[in-house]
Amino acid sequence: MSTGEFSIIERFFTHRRSRKDVVLGVGDDGAILAVPEGHHLVVSTDTLVSGIHFFADICPAKLAVKTVAVNLSDLAAMGAEPAWMTLAITMPDVDEGWLSEFARGLEQVCDYYGVALVGGDTTRGPLSLTVTMQGHVPINRALRRDGAKIGDWIYLTGAVGDSGAGLQALYQGEQGSQWQPFIERHLTPKPRLAAGIALRGIASAAMDLSDGLGSDLGHILRASGVAAQLEVDQIPLNPQLIELVGREQALQLALGGGEDYELLFTVSDSDKGTLATAMAETGSHAICIGQIVAGSGISYRRNGQEVDVSISGYNHFKENQ
Amino acid sequence: MSTGEFSIIERFFTHRRSRKDVVLGVGDDGAILAVPEGHHLVVSTDTLVSGIHFFADICPAKLAVKTVAVNLSDLAAMGAEPAWMTLAITMPDVDEGWLSEFARGLEQVCDYYGVALVGGDTTRGPLSLTVTMQGHVPINRALRRDGAKIGDWIYLTGAVGDSGAGLQALYQGEQGSQWQPFIERHLTPKPRLAAGIALRGIASAAMDLSDGLGSDLGHILRASGVAAQLEVDQIPLNPQLIELVGREQALQLALGGGEDYELLFTVSDSDKGTLATAMAETGSHAICIGQIVAGSGISYRRNGQEVDVSISGYNHFKENQ
Repeated sequence: MSTGEFSIIERFFTHRRSRKDVVLGVGDDGAILAVPEGHHLVVSTDTLVSGIHFFADICPAKLAVKTVAVNLSDLAAMGAEPAWMTLAITMPDVDEGWLSEFARGLEQVCDYYGVALVGGDTTRGPLSLTVTMQGHVPINRALRRDGAKIGDWIYLTGAVGDSGAGLQALYQGEQGSQWQPFIERHLTPKPRLAAGIALRGIASAAMDLSDGLGSDLGHILRASGVAAQLEVDQIPLNPQLIELVGREQALQLALGGGEDYELLFTVSDSDKGTLATAMAETGSHAICIGQIVAGSGISYRRNGQEVDVSISGYNHFKENQ
Repeated sequence: MSTGEFSIIERFFTHRRSRKDVVLGVGDDGAILAVPEGHHLVVSTDTLVSGIHFFADICPAKLAVKTVAVNLSDLAAMGAEPAWMTLAITMPDVDEGWLSEFARGLEQVCDYYGVALVGGDTTRGPLSLTVTMQGHVPINRALRRDGAKIGDWIYLTGAVGDSGAGLQALYQGEQGSQWQPFIERHLTPKPRLAAGIALRGIASAAMDLSDGLGSDLGHILRASGVAAQLEVDQIPLNPQLIELVGREQALQLALGGGEDYELLFTVSDSDKGTLATAMAETGSHAICIGQIVAGSGISYRRNGQEVDVSISGYNHFKENQ
């Protein structure tokens, strides 16, 4: 009997563990799910394409972890608690070894974050993965991009630039052990779910960093109709990265490198105290990097002086990258 | 300014009309949606790949309609009312002409069925589309595949085989006007949403036909642990199809052709009267084609005698098709 598309998702991706709110999971025309009362549903979709978002020879288990983590990061940025996911896999042929490795990684990461795989589709074609991640958030408590106000402080949950350095190391085939932490950071992002939930009712705006601080902050600014002043020397850079590539290159990676998956958020002056408490309770960090001001765009400052910083965000459709 | 991935979904796919239950749509890290109280969420995902599920030169507006319709059909099979969708597009380059044609078709079909596009992703790579469709159904009223009981009658909502004939005509480059209705049927499936909703509380099992009656019925039988006796001459075939290809070939297309997107469902003997009323109220059809029996697999009968019918369902991973 040939392995038909019917059975692949079921055979490889039916987890032993499920959630109580999964009324019906993989195997029917659709999944049936129970959103808790008093909550809104939060939904996000991301596609990862071989050769664009990951190297074709990536370890399938690591790919599964990254695919899930990237999508969880979007839910973290909404302040949502993740619950369910669907997965569409397109692959040239049924490679059972690859699939079972991928399924192993998927089960691990889903168990870790408490997410149930509730459906999917498997089709023939060039390798790509599309995840739709779903979660929920108490009504009117979701974090959005459009609430930043003049005077709000701008924060990050952690150091930025490491993932971009890891990607460069992969591209350049760097073998040295000094690159391993950065490659690891690139391959295994940590979605800031606890921080996102802790920021409910505190952050005036939030998003996750997928395309570089310089590019991503622009989304909050445009959605909120405001501008930002960033203090260049307050942007959290990994000391090991500075040692490896120098401060200016580390800054470039932080601003334009992408895929850090830290949360970028704004908090009003009066909520700074609440923020400190909430972050401490969840073991999360909040590093202030600047302030929201009137106008549009980002200005960069160093020692009280405006400085010129040329950067560009990651763009899959750019001709040269 | 180049067209970055950030803006494609927003520029082309932000509909003018939305739904009241969309708290936040396209443009943030995730959409925020309100599932009505007393309802379960229903979710289904399907991928369409260029060269596998559609011809690369297909009219983009028609492709949009088909992509949405195919996913709506899954919700119809669950008895769900559709509400929201996300769309992940992978394409080799930003083709603005193609995208605006696609967006036009998408807006039309979404408006027609009352579905809001609430998010998506656009990435570079070989052309493919993944839709995740979401809807809702009153708690404990969803249609499933696993409830067919011995003695239940087996039904279809309409004629089968037409779409398979349309696909063959496309493959063979048939230009004659006699093929047009079949090509149209293949390109523009009609999801049986009204029938699905009407079947809540009546159908003991249901699914939609995507891979051919012979193959799809097997899913209900395995999920329910039963067998089926089909009356070959009761299978609804389009008279024009019989005229064009002959009765036996029409039957083969019905059993193995795929993509008809009619509902296949079972109803207990005591619910036959309720079924007739419910179908009449929605202008839907219910054509009885056989009965659920004990055992496993499908047997075919003609004039009270068992007959041998060799068929095979559509399988994207089969070597020869």
